[in-house]
Amino acid sequence: MPQTEHIEKHFEAPVVIRDIVIGLADGLTVPFALAAGLSGSVSVTELVVIAGLAEIAAGSIAMGLGGYLAARTDREHYFSELARERREIVELPERERQEVADILREWGMPEENVQGAVNAISQDPERWVHFMMKFELGLEEPEPKRARNSSLTIGLSYIFGGLIPLAPYFFTANTRLALVISAVVTLIALFVFGFVKGRFTGTNPVKGAFQTMLVGGLAATVAYLVAAWIG
Amino acid sequence: MPQTEHIEKHFEAPVVIRDIVIGLADGLTVPFALAAGLSGSVSVTELVVIAGLAEIAAGSIAMGLGGYLAARTDREHYFSELARERREIVELPERERQEVADILREWGMPEENVQGAVNAISQDPERWVHFMMKFELGLEEPEPKRARNSSLTIGLSYIFGGLIPLAPYFFTANTRLALVISAVVTLIALFVFGFVKGRFTGTNPVKGAFQTMLVGGLAATVAYLVAAWIG
Repeated sequence: MPQTEHIEKHFEAPVVIRDIVIGLADGLTVPFALAAGLSGSVSVTELVVIAGLAEIAAGSIAMGLGGYLAARTDREHYFSELARERREIVELPERERQEVADILREWGMPEENVQGAVNAISQDPERWVHFMMKFELGLEEPEPKRARNSSLTIGLSYIFGGLIPLAPYFFTANTRLALVISAVVTLIALFVFGFVKGRFTGTNPVKGAFQTMLVGGLAATVAYLVAAWIG
Repeated sequence: MPQTEHIEKHFEAPVVIRDIVIGLADGLTVPFALAAGLSGSVSVTELVVIAGLAEIAAGSIAMGLGGYLAARTDREHYFSELARERREIVELPERERQEVADILREWGMPEENVQGAVNAISQDPERWVHFMMKFELGLEEPEPKRARNSSLTIGLSYIFGGLIPLAPYFFTANTRLALVISAVVTLIALFVFGFVKGRFTGTNPVKGAFQTMLVGGLAATVAYLVAAWIG
């Protein structure tokens, strides 16, 4: 039991952090790039603000509600596989015992211990089913609140991230000036975000900072060139 | 060995499908919603096309390059944990043997078999390390090509998905007409996409189809209302 808690803790933090990272990374990048792109072919900031806020609304719903439904689908998938394993240990007990034995052998269990361990595991149907779920299929039960939390975390992170590059366009009618301020503020925000993300995920923070800035900068540059080329 | 191949196969398909799903879902939804939003406050389709293409460029780079860096980070994380486990079985062999025993006991292995199995597993350092990686930390080596494939799959799916709702705006200068055609075409595309996705992931296809349409329709409606409210 303490082992299970340990494993769950090990997985819990990355899920929340990953959700914030997903929302913030896209929220900082796409509205920034869209606003930069439009600045290249539109002369009033009002249009950039309209397009930017429409994008933030669309993006946060697509990502948040999308995240909610994806997490719910994961959970449904887990329970449909669980029901199938429950049927299989009743209908095909010998094949399922054989699968347990194969897994134990692969782990290097000495042949003389295999049958005893298979007997012990298959004696308790619930333990047997969860053994198959975890080690044959690699599935663990997704947390029930994850779908809703994931949705809110991703959506709000996207909105928060998206308002940073858009803010300068609220305060001036000059798209060129707004673009310069937006680029400076957003590249700094991407750098800080990438640095913090690197620390959380245990990778090199400085490398993470430059990588995140690269994605945002490249997206904005290409969006600018595309818009300038048509507009 | 066949067991390992089986597990890898089980994971392989969902990764590619998930990448296509991620790219298509957002590509169909966000450019559709942005174009719909702008149609509510802009009278020429040219501006919608500029903003839509800038968004597709930004979104595909953010998602594709973002996916590439995320997959690469997963791989780096795996190897840094692997190096740590390799150190630990040399520096703290007793504690690591204890952890193997705890895991085996949790699976329900009879007490008289535990020591024999621990001895067998810890005899081969590579097997021992991979046992700890998989069952203590829940980590498997990410495939080397996954980072690049993931990036391309997500990015191209986003571009492909994004051009569907935008296409009607290329062919008429009337934003209202383009919006109606775009909404009809995109809602049908979202329905088909949700249906096929449901079949692939083993959930109810009709439910998946309506859910996907709901996300796209809701995102477009909110984007339209936000843009109309400001514009």
